[in-house]
Amino acid sequence: MDALFVCRVRGFAVIHPIPPGTRDMLPDEMREVRAITEGLRQTFESAGYGEVWTPALEYEEVLRAGDGAASKAGYRMFDEQGHVLALRSDMTIPIARVAATRYRAEGGPLRLCYFAHAYRSVGRGSGQQREFLQAGAELIGVEGPGGEAEVIALLLAALDRAGLARHRIGLGDGALYRHLLNNLEVPAEDHAELLERLSARDMVGLEMRVAQLGLPDSARRLLTRLPELRGGPGVLERASEAAGPSVEGLQTLYAALEDRGVADRVIIDLGLVRDLSYYTGAVYEVYDPAVGFTLGGGGRYDDLIGSFGTPRPACGVGLDVQRVHIARAAEERLR
Amino acid sequence: MDALFVCRVRGFAVIHPIPPGTRDMLPDEMREVRAITEGLRQTFESAGYGEVWTPALEYEEVLRAGDGAASKAGYRMFDEQGHVLALRSDMTIPIARVAATRYRAEGGPLRLCYFAHAYRSVGRGSGQQREFLQAGAELIGVEGPGGEAEVIALLLAALDRAGLARHRIGLGDGALYRHLLNNLEVPAEDHAELLERLSARDMVGLEMRVAQLGLPDSARRLLTRLPELRGGPGVLERASEAAGPSVEGLQTLYAALEDRGVADRVIIDLGLVRDLSYYTGAVYEVYDPAVGFTLGGGGRYDDLIGSFGTPRPACGVGLDVQRVHIARAAEERLR
Repeated sequence: MDALFVCRVRGFAVIHPIPPGTRDMLPDEMREVRAITEGLRQTFESAGYGEVWTPALEYEEVLRAGDGAASKAGYRMFDEQGHVLALRSDMTIPIARVAATRYRAEGGPLRLCYFAHAYRSVGRGSGQQREFLQAGAELIGVEGPGGEAEVIALLLAALDRAGLARHRIGLGDGALYRHLLNNLEVPAEDHAELLERLSARDMVGLEMRVAQLGLPDSARRLLTRLPELRGGPGVLERASEAAGPSVEGLQTLYAALEDRGVADRVIIDLGLVRDLSYYTGAVYEVYDPAVGFTLGGGGRYDDLIGSFGTPRPACGVGLDVQRVHIARAAEERLR
Repeated sequence: MDALFVCRVRGFAVIHPIPPGTRDMLPDEMREVRAITEGLRQTFESAGYGEVWTPALEYEEVLRAGDGAASKAGYRMFDEQGHVLALRSDMTIPIARVAATRYRAEGGPLRLCYFAHAYRSVGRGSGQQREFLQAGAELIGVEGPGGEAEVIALLLAALDRAGLARHRIGLGDGALYRHLLNNLEVPAEDHAELLERLSARDMVGLEMRVAQLGLPDSARRLLTRLPELRGGPGVLERASEAAGPSVEGLQTLYAALEDRGVADRVIIDLGLVRDLSYYTGAVYEVYDPAVGFTLGGGGRYDDLIGSFGTPRPACGVGLDVQRVHIARAAEERLR
């Protein structure tokens, strides 16, 4: 028996650890977390987003139809018939499955929300969460940028309702850098490594790797400077010539957010690349200056539902409820 | 690729099954289930039961410290360091762990509640649930029968609040039949099989097995007739001579339920044996004549917390929220 597990003192065990990256939550904390989830649920439901539940355990083969990388991140086990089951690592893929199978015949926009735990394996001593409570909303059947504008406005209303006051949304486009790489004729085999460094915000590594490509000076500058552009809508003007249709989409989206009166909370960030492979357009992340981590994010994933059936445009957002809770406590300490 | 999984029609997949015993819940159903859990939560919280959350994934070795049989029922997988993790198959064992570790220094009664999914492996075509939402309450540090009376009254209030009107509690004693077997000097190696048949309510099988024991007529009659005693408090008078201290405990408990004004909903059932091995005294199950399955149950488990640290008496109850939902719908159809 592993010494870590059970230390016996006078005949009974005194240490019973839980796996790193998991937590027991006691009543004082639970009441606050419940208040946050209730506020989020009311915001989502009053905007017409109906709550759904999907099983935590699914056939790995089915999850992998949605996204190979996402299903790899979870836990796998065998069922009684020898099929491989996996614990869900996010809710967007199961909801895409539900949209494609249970709502196959419905043509109009579909608004769904969820409150559920998801699971990811974690590195030793990484401080990552193995189990996390996600709250999210998915808007299916509405194209961009109108769809993203609705979801970002909903997200801001939900965060207000959760008691945050200093939150900001970073807004980028998951396809922008890929377009740029294609336009500049960077060999396809180099794309993955460059995107990986960008996704990790490793700007020094990105610059070194770009330097090795042997591109003209102007192209090299574009590949390293464009992802550092961050700020108000002026950023988009500076980038529009080089980055083409992705920037036009962001300009239209920003205008829609201005119309909804929420653009003051949005920061354009052309270096933003979310690490899930299913995003096809706008991507966004939630920040709070009171804490040093993102509270959640989302984006447009127009190809995901098609991998389970009839293609439909879609976008959504997910929040890490525990991080929202920590951010609220941190904001309160700063007041 | 298994034909069951993906059937391709004109280039895209149309069938994406979920594992048997799991369900997708869509908004109409979710709203009703949420209303039930909110009602249960308010009942539990206003009675002083604080909600806790424990991780769905725990070290199997830790869960097994609580109950070997219970941890076997779940799913196992390896973590990154090669330790075996298990998906919880109930919430009572994790809460016993929490009580023994996080509340070790507190002497007074501890009232906790939970709303969480648990997981069990299922037989093919059995119709059993692989994933089920449990709502429950645990009362720690209060001895029987006062403890059980509080928990049963709370359970009845919670079921009222959940919208049920025809529910009944079956009340027995998990130790009664074991006492009887000992008193009648039935060999210890025969106990497990007899208890298993009783737990499965296989009265014909029980009678056959008892007949093979070669006991005197009076003992044989007792072993087969006593577990068929079911009804009001008169049942306890008829059994008291044969079954000793367990029956005295039930008499005191029934009197306490009369004092609380809830005894009219309680049916004494001397054949009731819950199949979890950690029960040490009173056990109870929830029935509704509108449906053919139990909605939940619980009992006294005075030895469980001690297996994680300092022993403390405890009892509790767990409800299957989805079954409560089905029972409410069935009652409404009968009105």
